[in-house]
Amino acid sequence: MTKFKYDETEGFKKGRDVWFEMRGEKVAQAAVDQAAQNEMTRDLRQFLFEHCFAAAWARPGLERMTRSIITISVLQALGRTEELKSHIRMGINNGLTREQLKEIFLHVGVYAGVPTAVAAVRAAMEEFDAADKAKAKG
Amino acid sequence: MTKFKYDETEGFKKGRDVWFEMRGEKVAQAAVDQAAQNEMTRDLRQFLFEHCFAAAWARPGLERMTRSIITISVLQALGRTEELKSHIRMGINNGLTREQLKEIFLHVGVYAGVPTAVAAVRAAMEEFDAADKAKAKG
Amino acid sequence: MTKFKYDETEGFKKGRDVWFEMRGEKVAQAAVDQAAQNEMTRDLRQFLFEHCFAAAWARPGLERMTRSIITISVLQALGRTEELKSHIRMGINNGLTREQLKEIFLHVGVYAGVPTAVAAVRAAMEEFDAADKAKAKG
Amino acid sequence: MTKFKYDETEGFKKGRDVWFEMRGEKVAQAAVDQAAQNEMTRDLRQFLFEHCFAAAWARPGLERMTRSIITISVLQALGRTEELKSHIRMGINNGLTREQLKEIFLHVGVYAGVPTAVAAVRAAMEEFDAADKAKAKG
Amino acid sequence: MTKFKYDETEGFKKGRDVWFEMRGEKVAQAAVDQAAQNEMTRDLRQFLFEHCFAAAWARPGLERMTRSIITISVLQALGRTEELKSHIRMGINNGLTREQLKEIFLHVGVYAGVPTAVAAVRAAMEEFDAADKAKAKG
Amino acid sequence: MTKFKYDETEGFKKGRDVWFEMRGEKVAQAAVDQAAQNEMTRDLRQFLFEHCFAAAWARPGLERMTRSIITISVLQALGRTEELKSHIRMGINNGLTREQLKEIFLHVGVYAGVPTAVAAVRAAMEEFDAADKAKAKG
Repeated sequence: MTKFKYDETEGFKKGRDVWFEMRGEKVAQAAVDQAAQNEMTRDLRQFLFEHCFAAAWARPGLERMTRSIITISVLQALGRTEELKSHIRMGINNGLTREQLKEIFLHVGVYAGVPTAVAAVRAAMEEFDAADKAKAKG
Repeated sequence: MTKFKYDETEGFKKGRDVWFEMRGEKVAQAAVDQAAQNEMTRDLRQFLFEHCFAAAWARPGLERMTRSIITISVLQALGRTEELKSHIRMGINNGLTREQLKEIFLHVGVYAGVPTAVAAVRAAMEEFDAADKAKAKG
Repeated sequence: MTKFKYDETEGFKKGRDVWFEMRGEKVAQAAVDQAAQNEMTRDLRQFLFEHCFAAAWARPGLERMTRSIITISVLQALGRTEELKSHIRMGINNGLTREQLKEIFLHVGVYAGVPTAVAAVRAAMEEFDAADKAKAKG
Repeated sequence: MTKFKYDETEGFKKGRDVWFEMRGEKVAQAAVDQAAQNEMTRDLRQFLFEHCFAAAWARPGLERMTRSIITISVLQALGRTEELKSHIRMGINNGLTREQLKEIFLHVGVYAGVPTAVAAVRAAMEEFDAADKAKAKG
Repeated sequence: MTKFKYDETEGFKKGRDVWFEMRGEKVAQAAVDQAAQNEMTRDLRQFLFEHCFAAAWARPGLERMTRSIITISVLQALGRTEELKSHIRMGINNGLTREQLKEIFLHVGVYAGVPTAVAAVRAAMEEFDAADKAKAKG
Repeated sequence: MTKFKYDETEGFKKGRDVWFEMRGEKVAQAAVDQAAQNEMTRDLRQFLFEHCFAAAWARPGLERMTRSIITISVLQALGRTEELKSHIRMGINNGLTREQLKEIFLHVGVYAGVPTAVAAVRAAMEEFDAADKAKAKG
């Protein structure tokens, strides 16, 4: 049962569609429903669809994989590790290989400091382990 | 007349070669000669060739244009405006269009804060003006 | 003569209206016209109206002066000095006194490091001097 | 049994008084006693009373709620999540509503990047859950 | 059984030697072996030896304890808490006392914001507890 | 003629004395008098003496040169270039050589990103040039 309603503006729908494609329908829907249980999380989700996913990801001019590269670079550089994990997952959905991710981490490490590369590799290893286990389970 | 000598290690040469290609032979040689006038700038230049350009840019696994995208994203996010200008120039040499640069700036703005996009656009406009004037002059 | 057109979406208009009130009609219109001369600055301006001024400033729930306090605190903490100057001006238009600005600068200095307070005071003094001279001129 | 003594300077007392009012007498006293068990934590606590709470919070010129708004904005922008949680609690004691906190988080998200808003909302939800459970028990 | 081989370049060996001395032979060897299990962690370790420990720590011109002071200051200022813990350990191996560490934390707190001092003290207390327990165990 | 008075507290005097020694009597007195012309700069100067120079620099436990090393490392890492210049000058007064400064800049570059080393070297070269010219003039 959903307590708070989203405002289905143009921006909301555009951002939601991009995000559902990148996250996967099922996980995305569960997150959207969960967020609707509380006014604060509902408003954040609404804001993210309109002013993050519609504002940036839905624009033409760059491929989605390129947008993943940019996002991952920024999150590593700024040390936003939780968000980085979620974008490593989406980056793989957008076509990035583990080899390419590794190269991004080392390159960013030069420009933002080597500790950011250590943290990014640690985050990625956790994501890869989780993904490999999920796959093994089938 | 050069006062301080570089130590022409493997790393130095690998990094220097990448950088000369991206900056253009003439400008690069002048900068290397200028840096050799002083111990501090010589050591910085030596360090950059070995631990920045050889360490990151000379690695296989990502195209040079992709490395420009990563570098520009990080420099914008961290507010390193002077270095950003120099990498906008090199990014264009590596194949980035002005349209793509604009998309990077806005995308990073969402993840690192809109003031970083304002600063990046301001820096890019200065670079474009300088480039257009140089071209007009012939 | 304007070369690039804005896309007058709901968000654009909402953000533009807030910004015109805070910046002053005349200065704002000149900036909007100037930005329209180039695709990159036009797109940035469009983005700022929709995803900064409509996304944050046009929301209910906080007074405009409170939003100035938040914005100035963040810009000082992150060291975005150019943007800080423009928000000091707008903060004064939104009702902040010089005394209150000083208190913000010192308080943020404790939490983001004293060099941010030094930089903010320097930026504010420049703005105040400019404002006092403009006033003296009439 | 307290092993290390505080130096009860003017600044210490001024800062301590503000902090006790914002944290609540009982929790604050326990924290002060706990810190006195070790030289490093004692010195930190002494430093915080003199150079944070006396230096900023005890000054006239801004209401305490306004100082909470500034502090929360800076902590979110810089990604200091642990400290943010403690200031969300104190901000509520200083009169901030959950609705106002939400607006601060989204506004800061625009200026410091949307991942900071995601992290702040996550931190606040944890604080709210803990507070609601304590109340239900109480 | 080690799956991925290191490339034993000059830089690798120079960086490895410094790191083994600072970390302690046994812990260091285990970490190097563990990293070799996976291509990403192997490449990171290779990178760290060449472009962090050889690039900075193996240089003449500053004593190792001074390099610990610099590293700890930067890690605290940038909020890299995980890496900070590991460098608190190495700093003690390089001769820093707990008293000196405390002074570094408070000094950096003034320049990078008091929350960084709170986080650094918290990290150090964890390290000290672990070290004291290990010692008590014998 | 001085318009605003300082509050000569214990902290003020302790901080002022340290700063006068590090900056040089004449330059320091001129800066203090200049700051007293305006309420905002007077309050900032008062705050710096009490909550920066007394709070950190006047403490026992670390030599002044070590405090310079910490300060310079943090300012470089956070990109506070204007403040960095002033602390390069004071660091030299506290006994740091140009060679040691260079080593600090490169070491910090590894941990905070190479662009911070480039900016620090540029700042230092400006300071050295100014100092050399002043000396030549005699």
